[in-house]
Amino acid sequence: MLKRYLPILQWLPHYNRHTLIDDTLAAFVVTLMIIPQALAYALLAGLPAVVGLYASILPLIVYTVFGTSRTLAIGPMALISLMTAAALSKVAPPGSEAYIDAAITLTLMVGILLTLMGALRLGFFANFLSHPVISGLLSASGVLIAASQMANMAGLPNAGFTLTQQLANLWRHIDALHPLTLAIGFMSLGLLLAIRRSGPLLQRSGLSAARARFLIKMGPILVVALATWICWLGELAGRGVAVVGHVPSHLPPLGLPSTDSDIWRSLLVPALLISVVGFIESIALAQMLAAKRRESISPDQELIGLGTSNIASALSSGMPVIGSLSRTMVNFSAGARTPAAGAISGISVALITLFLTPLIKYLPTATLAAIIIASSITLIDTGTIRRTWRYSRSDSAAMGATIVLTLIEGVEIGIMAGVTLSIALFLYRTSRPHSALVGRLPGTEHFRNIDRHDVESDSHLALLRIDESLYFANARYLEDTVYDLVTRHPEIEHVVLICSAINLIDASALESLDAINARLNDSHVTLHLAEVKGPVMDRLKSSEFLDELTGRVFLSTYGAWKTLSRNDGAPQHSGD
Amino acid sequence: MLKRYLPILQWLPHYNRHTLIDDTLAAFVVTLMIIPQALAYALLAGLPAVVGLYASILPLIVYTVFGTSRTLAIGPMALISLMTAAALSKVAPPGSEAYIDAAITLTLMVGILLTLMGALRLGFFANFLSHPVISGLLSASGVLIAASQMANMAGLPNAGFTLTQQLANLWRHIDALHPLTLAIGFMSLGLLLAIRRSGPLLQRSGLSAARARFLIKMGPILVVALATWICWLGELAGRGVAVVGHVPSHLPPLGLPSTDSDIWRSLLVPALLISVVGFIESIALAQMLAAKRRESISPDQELIGLGTSNIASALSSGMPVIGSLSRTMVNFSAGARTPAAGAISGISVALITLFLTPLIKYLPTATLAAIIIASSITLIDTGTIRRTWRYSRSDSAAMGATIVLTLIEGVEIGIMAGVTLSIALFLYRTSRPHSALVGRLPGTEHFRNIDRHDVESDSHLALLRIDESLYFANARYLEDTVYDLVTRHPEIEHVVLICSAINLIDASALESLDAINARLNDSHVTLHLAEVKGPVMDRLKSSEFLDELTGRVFLSTYGAWKTLSRNDGAPQHSGD
Repeated sequence: MLKRYLPILQWLPHYNRHTLIDDTLAAFVVTLMIIPQALAYALLAGLPAVVGLYASILPLIVYTVFGTSRTLAIGPMALISLMTAAALSKVAPPGSEAYIDAAITLTLMVGILLTLMGALRLGFFANFLSHPVISGLLSASGVLIAASQMANMAGLPNAGFTLTQQLANLWRHIDALHPLTLAIGFMSLGLLLAIRRSGPLLQRSGLSAARARFLIKMGPILVVALATWICWLGELAGRGVAVVGHVPSHLPPLGLPSTDSDIWRSLLVPALLISVVGFIESIALAQMLAAKRRESISPDQELIGLGTSNIASALSSGMPVIGSLSRTMVNFSAGARTPAAGAISGISVALITLFLTPLIKYLPTATLAAIIIASSITLIDTGTIRRTWRYSRSDSAAMGATIVLTLIEGVEIGIMAGVTLSIALFLYRTSRPHSALVGRLPGTEHFRNIDRHDVESDSHLALLRIDESLYFANARYLEDTVYDLVTRHPEIEHVVLICSAINLIDASALESLDAINARLNDSHVTLHLAEVKGPVMDRLKSSEFLDELTGRVFLSTYGAWKTLSRNDGAPQHSGD
Repeated sequence: MLKRYLPILQWLPHYNRHTLIDDTLAAFVVTLMIIPQALAYALLAGLPAVVGLYASILPLIVYTVFGTSRTLAIGPMALISLMTAAALSKVAPPGSEAYIDAAITLTLMVGILLTLMGALRLGFFANFLSHPVISGLLSASGVLIAASQMANMAGLPNAGFTLTQQLANLWRHIDALHPLTLAIGFMSLGLLLAIRRSGPLLQRSGLSAARARFLIKMGPILVVALATWICWLGELAGRGVAVVGHVPSHLPPLGLPSTDSDIWRSLLVPALLISVVGFIESIALAQMLAAKRRESISPDQELIGLGTSNIASALSSGMPVIGSLSRTMVNFSAGARTPAAGAISGISVALITLFLTPLIKYLPTATLAAIIIASSITLIDTGTIRRTWRYSRSDSAAMGATIVLTLIEGVEIGIMAGVTLSIALFLYRTSRPHSALVGRLPGTEHFRNIDRHDVESDSHLALLRIDESLYFANARYLEDTVYDLVTRHPEIEHVVLICSAINLIDASALESLDAINARLNDSHVTLHLAEVKGPVMDRLKSSEFLDELTGRVFLSTYGAWKTLSRNDGAPQHSGD
């Protein structure tokens, strides 16, 4: 029991020198990645760069205690930072004290919501975000994030959370473009993209694949070091290039968030969306990697792990944190063995915050913007968009709505529209179930669609197979189908509903079956059922329907055929 | 084409003296019922009594032209009047000119919405109101309507649209109770209920069943006549008994509604709900009766019929109209043959409005309240509540939420909560699909659940039957089920997913199948499919899944068994 809620107890007793060495090596690489990413994502969220570091200390240590994934590397993440900025800008002006306070409140709310969802075992809620919606959301947010950082890269003020607002902002301030900043931005971006593509070149020049991968992952920290050095050397801050500036060299101040109920109320919906999106991203990542190593993840405990990490982030002046795709992959491939690697990273970030922050004083924000752009364009996944379009028009519709609305109305509206449309389309599809009149494959006990196969049939007997569970949204459609059938074929004396694909009959559908039974009876047609599944039958027995049914319930379609058909062809099998 | 949009062209050419006689007789009975009901429902909607008459003239004539039901008797109806009152009270004080104007605007909006829904063929939307939700709504509104009329029956001011508000209102004004009014109200109610139960007595005293039914249906008009006569005789209006008072003896003034966009905006949601509820009630009634006589109803044209009737009602100073249950049943059993019966009723009401309104001047409103109470208590359907509870807990939950929220928060919140909960519960149920490991019934080609039947199985071969369509809400659950299976049974070499109950695989589920295929491959387990339906297979062929599938697609489970099983028992059939 205790082990379930404190997963650390499962691995800590077996911890030894070997695991420590593996974890420390992985943590070292991850820490080098955290620094530029944390600074950049804090900037994306409209917060001081140091907040990103604060969010990468205590939360990582807390996740080590409560998380179930052995390799998930948590911390600030691009999409969540964008959503954070959009939420906060509604309650306070960016850059103000109130904005930073609101960020802490939002983080605490996310933490509480995730923990509550875990405690109430609501992990399954995440299933309602369909894959096309998530994929559309990520692609659109890649575009949005890149667009938002164009302004930072050009030395312009950054404004807006929709593509239209951002493009309008760029257009409006185009005159204020700062060429030197832009040059540093483009240089950083070019270098980042070049390093990312340098794998084959590095290997050809004799490096092992693993070493080449490591060097590529270190690209951002190299670019940060180079740009900072150039800025310091050229005294570019004095020539109008925006830099990170003075960062206080102390551990995050501990404190409590605002208790203003208006702020809590207006942050509730964004906090909920951040929680759900963050959870889905993290759990998908954690499950994928756990499966590769045959470890297991508990979604509900994972919610508690992420929730407590966010609460820790809020209490230490941080921002919302979730599992980071890039750092988790590096942590996994660098060989982290236990969640202790996360705690070691957290402690390393704390040491860097204490002793090395003076080094980033001259880091240009245009370089951080370039890092965000380089990583956000990898979110744009045209492969999935194409594949979904080929596979299913209605899934594409949900994806398209998510993309378009995210771009022009922002992330929140985009998600909500995508989820609503996914559900509506699913209900619409199931509201007009496929059904088929079937006939007997001559000489067999098998029955097939009379429109697709050459089968025996009997004009007095309609064998109707319904390919969907029966519930309120399709109950009336079923009635229409049956009435239409007997109206078009007045010679029908028996209707057999073949229920092999019916997994559920709800109360509305039961009323419809009652109505069908009564109306067919009025016109001297008998209603039968065949191949009713066990759970459905159990349920029907608790109603009065079976007493009122004018016909019988057959175990198999062949049984119904044998009993009801007047067809002359003598049955060639005797089994039922 | 013209006949589709003008259903009158289908029957008018065959109209003759016989149909005219039948229609006129039915119209006579229905008109006698309309008068008290129309006055009472106008009162329930907070409108002058005469508005109920206005709404029973032109709309009936218009429905004759555009409606497809031969027997639907339209006009004001209890639940719709209650919803009208709730909607109007938000935009104007009851009794004011603005309130009457808003009623006309609301009626026009309902008309436009219904007509548009018909033109856009959106009739299927009504399917999302499940039977338990409608039934719960009717039961709860029966209670609400009765409670709201208690005040009128006792001579107290009427206030509130939730049970709590109404009970508080009664309690607050209990001192102002008017004993004489209450006496008339109770007398009227007692008489109405006594007449309703007098069927057996009347038949025992020698009347035919048909005549007894006719007399019972005339109960309200008899009570109205009696109460009016008593009031006139005893000059009770002078002694504080509220009466209908002077009713202008002219046809409804034609006119246009308000163009104030604020009012339109705040009436939009109520208008939509009134439209959907009104449509469902009408179409259910019309279809039930049409089926009895083997006539047919077009739901989309029916929307246009109801829509144009409401537009006609708005243009002639009326209120929202829909199919009335009690009058439609009487119209049907009195032998109406064509929609002309409705037009004849409409003309009769016009004549009564012109010449007989002075007669209702002394009609006490307490008697109208008693008529509403007597009819609203018939809406409370404890039988369905009990049946639903026995049949399905989750349908009962949707019904219970609808009832409770309608009573304490009003009709609109009640409907929306019921619909949301129905959909959420359906998604939840399908998100954890039933699945079963199956084995072979010895010596046959049939396969059954290994937990329920005594079957052959093979420890290297898992035959997993999934009893639900695969879509985003259950895709991850499927992954968990399969991974859990192979983790618990490391000896498994082949997993066969039996797809006989899978009617749909959406893009999210396809991703999950891809993931399952890849992960099983990692642990040297082969994935196969069996019994994939035609439409599902067509879809899979348009993706890359089948190319990547490590195993095969079998036509039948038996085929998979024959090929993959190592079980020693030699197959006893040779068919595949």
